[in-house]
Amino acid sequence: MGSDTNAQYVPEETDPAKIIVELCKLFYAQGWVTGTAGGMSIKDGDLVYVAPSGVQKERMNPVDLFVYDTKSKTYVSKPELYKPSACTPLFMACYEQRRAGACIHTHSQNAVMASLLWGREFRIANIEQVKAIPKVVEPGNLSFFDTLVIPIIENTAHEEDLAPDLEKALLEYPMAPAVLVRRHGLYVWGANVWKAKIINEAIDYLLELAVKMRHAGIDPAGDIGSEQLTRKI
Amino acid sequence: MGSDTNAQYVPEETDPAKIIVELCKLFYAQGWVTGTAGGMSIKDGDLVYVAPSGVQKERMNPVDLFVYDTKSKTYVSKPELYKPSACTPLFMACYEQRRAGACIHTHSQNAVMASLLWGREFRIANIEQVKAIPKVVEPGNLSFFDTLVIPIIENTAHEEDLAPDLEKALLEYPMAPAVLVRRHGLYVWGANVWKAKIINEAIDYLLELAVKMRHAGIDPAGDIGSEQLTRKI
Amino acid sequence: MGSDTNAQYVPEETDPAKIIVELCKLFYAQGWVTGTAGGMSIKDGDLVYVAPSGVQKERMNPVDLFVYDTKSKTYVSKPELYKPSACTPLFMACYEQRRAGACIHTHSQNAVMASLLWGREFRIANIEQVKAIPKVVEPGNLSFFDTLVIPIIENTAHEEDLAPDLEKALLEYPMAPAVLVRRHGLYVWGANVWKAKIINEAIDYLLELAVKMRHAGIDPAGDIGSEQLTRKI
Amino acid sequence: MGSDTNAQYVPEETDPAKIIVELCKLFYAQGWVTGTAGGMSIKDGDLVYVAPSGVQKERMNPVDLFVYDTKSKTYVSKPELYKPSACTPLFMACYEQRRAGACIHTHSQNAVMASLLWGREFRIANIEQVKAIPKVVEPGNLSFFDTLVIPIIENTAHEEDLAPDLEKALLEYPMAPAVLVRRHGLYVWGANVWKAKIINEAIDYLLELAVKMRHAGIDPAGDIGSEQLTRKI
Repeated sequence: MGSDTNAQYVPEETDPAKIIVELCKLFYAQGWVTGTAGGMSIKDGDLVYVAPSGVQKERMNPVDLFVYDTKSKTYVSKPELYKPSACTPLFMACYEQRRAGACIHTHSQNAVMASLLWGREFRIANIEQVKAIPKVVEPGNLSFFDTLVIPIIENTAHEEDLAPDLEKALLEYPMAPAVLVRRHGLYVWGANVWKAKIINEAIDYLLELAVKMRHAGIDPAGDIGSEQLTRKI
Repeated sequence: MGSDTNAQYVPEETDPAKIIVELCKLFYAQGWVTGTAGGMSIKDGDLVYVAPSGVQKERMNPVDLFVYDTKSKTYVSKPELYKPSACTPLFMACYEQRRAGACIHTHSQNAVMASLLWGREFRIANIEQVKAIPKVVEPGNLSFFDTLVIPIIENTAHEEDLAPDLEKALLEYPMAPAVLVRRHGLYVWGANVWKAKIINEAIDYLLELAVKMRHAGIDPAGDIGSEQLTRKI
Repeated sequence: MGSDTNAQYVPEETDPAKIIVELCKLFYAQGWVTGTAGGMSIKDGDLVYVAPSGVQKERMNPVDLFVYDTKSKTYVSKPELYKPSACTPLFMACYEQRRAGACIHTHSQNAVMASLLWGREFRIANIEQVKAIPKVVEPGNLSFFDTLVIPIIENTAHEEDLAPDLEKALLEYPMAPAVLVRRHGLYVWGANVWKAKIINEAIDYLLELAVKMRHAGIDPAGDIGSEQLTRKI
Repeated sequence: MGSDTNAQYVPEETDPAKIIVELCKLFYAQGWVTGTAGGMSIKDGDLVYVAPSGVQKERMNPVDLFVYDTKSKTYVSKPELYKPSACTPLFMACYEQRRAGACIHTHSQNAVMASLLWGREFRIANIEQVKAIPKVVEPGNLSFFDTLVIPIIENTAHEEDLAPDLEKALLEYPMAPAVLVRRHGLYVWGANVWKAKIINEAIDYLLELAVKMRHAGIDPAGDIGSEQLTRKI
């Protein structure tokens, strides 16, 4: 993996609705959005595309998506059968506070387990895969010796009520590339949809690895070499 | 995920036989119905479609299904090569006692492991994914702070002999969205086939997560915050 | 799952070579035959079809298979590029001693782990999935309360040298539906290719479940209820 | 599996660029190159094909690859949008020191976990799957009783800086079929692309199995029978 770049990826498909439909099928296959869980959104200029609430994420059609115009503050497309996603205010917070171009929300079990094993912050250090994560506050990605820190916020009864705590976490952790929601899942964003997808994949890989390290008695944020002193297997 | 709704899903395919064939391929890929295990049924008006006994669930054709007319109490379609599923009386109990529109039975290893680790009831609480589970006794779904309770019945030598205990569990647990069968698997139903599929996915996710929590020393039904006091890794 | 029958499955494809090619792709996707591991054979009348030695099992073509005529004791088809499988004598033993119609050999990690955790015999009892396993010595399948016993033989330097121990195990364990090879994998057979596939799936499911039970402190061959007394999680 | 041969595999596809594109999709599905991780290269005569840096490995097109002419020491094809892979010097070391025809680099979690649990060398012995691994210093593959040894080198801030340590490991371990990079992943090569793929699959299988053995209290390099004395489950 290149250490400091995500070269611009130019796929043939450019329709945000079709990309959301395609990627949600992929996320379903990963177990991240089964049982109608999760959500996804792309911002295309002034338009924000959002997958609807409570639908099977792997069986959507492009016409099922909500399309909101941030300029006119109205829905350009509002499918009658569905309700807008309760994730919408959280996606909007990422668009506004992080100038994101796309947001992904999953119920990944790696994220839920990490949220149960860590306290206020998830931390992992000295693992090559962090190089896929952007520094956020400046150009370029994290380096091998950097520590990835992801804040963990407490879950609320209604998903939309997470917005204030998510906004606060974005302010308090300017370098955070994602936010974990305890006993719930993960919110990730990126400058565009492909960067969001890459970052989501890299973070989920790191969450999975970190849980495995804990099972082996190894501190995922420990110094290089500490694993040999603490491992239990 | 929307907190209180499963918006109506309208797929193009509406033939119950074709849907059963398609979903059983999906369940096979999840490892839920390998080795001829499991079963599935859809109720379409007076007609009940059931996958046959002892066949490879991923290799059925629509003509392989049994179709029973609940009005005339006769089989409208009865493939010569096969035997009716031993699950049929259990599916019928769900149709009658829960006004279900579809039933799914799997041998999911998450279900079997949960049945070995819990006693008379499986319980999980304070996990976002429970919001995909209906309250059953009233409209709407469980909320984040609710506890999902699934009764566990003992297995019998012959699958059809499970019916009395399943019927009893349905009466004793009016809010139960499913029944676990110890050392055997899971029975799930829903108002229609897509709701049954969604509920099955959400419950399997929760069973898998709950077993992982137990391995980490965390009580899946414990209070929020208890995980930090009891975790072993 | 029907308790005492595997209804006759009639797929459209009947060419043994094409079925082997298709099923090996499926076994590859399960991780059972990666890295050229494993093997498969079908007996069709006097002809025995065998996948060649040392090839990528998911990338074979029907013409790549060896076809041996048991009547004339000559190869009817012997692809120049390949060597006959070292599994051939073991498959032949199953055909002769068990009147099998097909044999499957995998390097399943569940099989290898089970062979490391058990001594001379693998045992599991009181699990519904055993009902997919034939009794072998009489018609019908195991019942829920039966114990599945699979002998474990020691591995040898050359695969073909396993034949004497496999033949001995088949004699000593007339009810065995399969043989485990320590630190190596699993040999399974069936009256025809679909029964062999079903039995292989059911056994692999049981091996996987049994290893999970051991990790949880539960004896897979223990009495019903013993799990509550011994579980460690 | 044949004990001493990887019979020559002749696929229809022979274009190195198309093979890299196809195999990277496969590696992505295995979780080995998600989040732009990993890399792959084929040497075809004087030409070296390399997947670009920082791209989604499952979404490349053949025209996206860099093609370097080792004779003229110039790039024959250099896609404008991308940067050459930082793995390139490591692939070149394998081509020169091992006369390899193809190289694969993954971030497999099995590799990372093994690198955390072992010290300077990963070792596994007496497992059938090692027979898919070449002896390197002489024709033929390892036998069942052989010990597979893979050196583990320390990671560096920049991937290209790994080259000196990788070259040193290749010299110090003339029989090594691969090199592990601590907290990072795995480098594997082979005489041609299909042998590299087979060896990578076999090594990943062995790394996964070895980590499972450690969790069960079994030394993967222990004598046959030692597992019964040390197992903890």
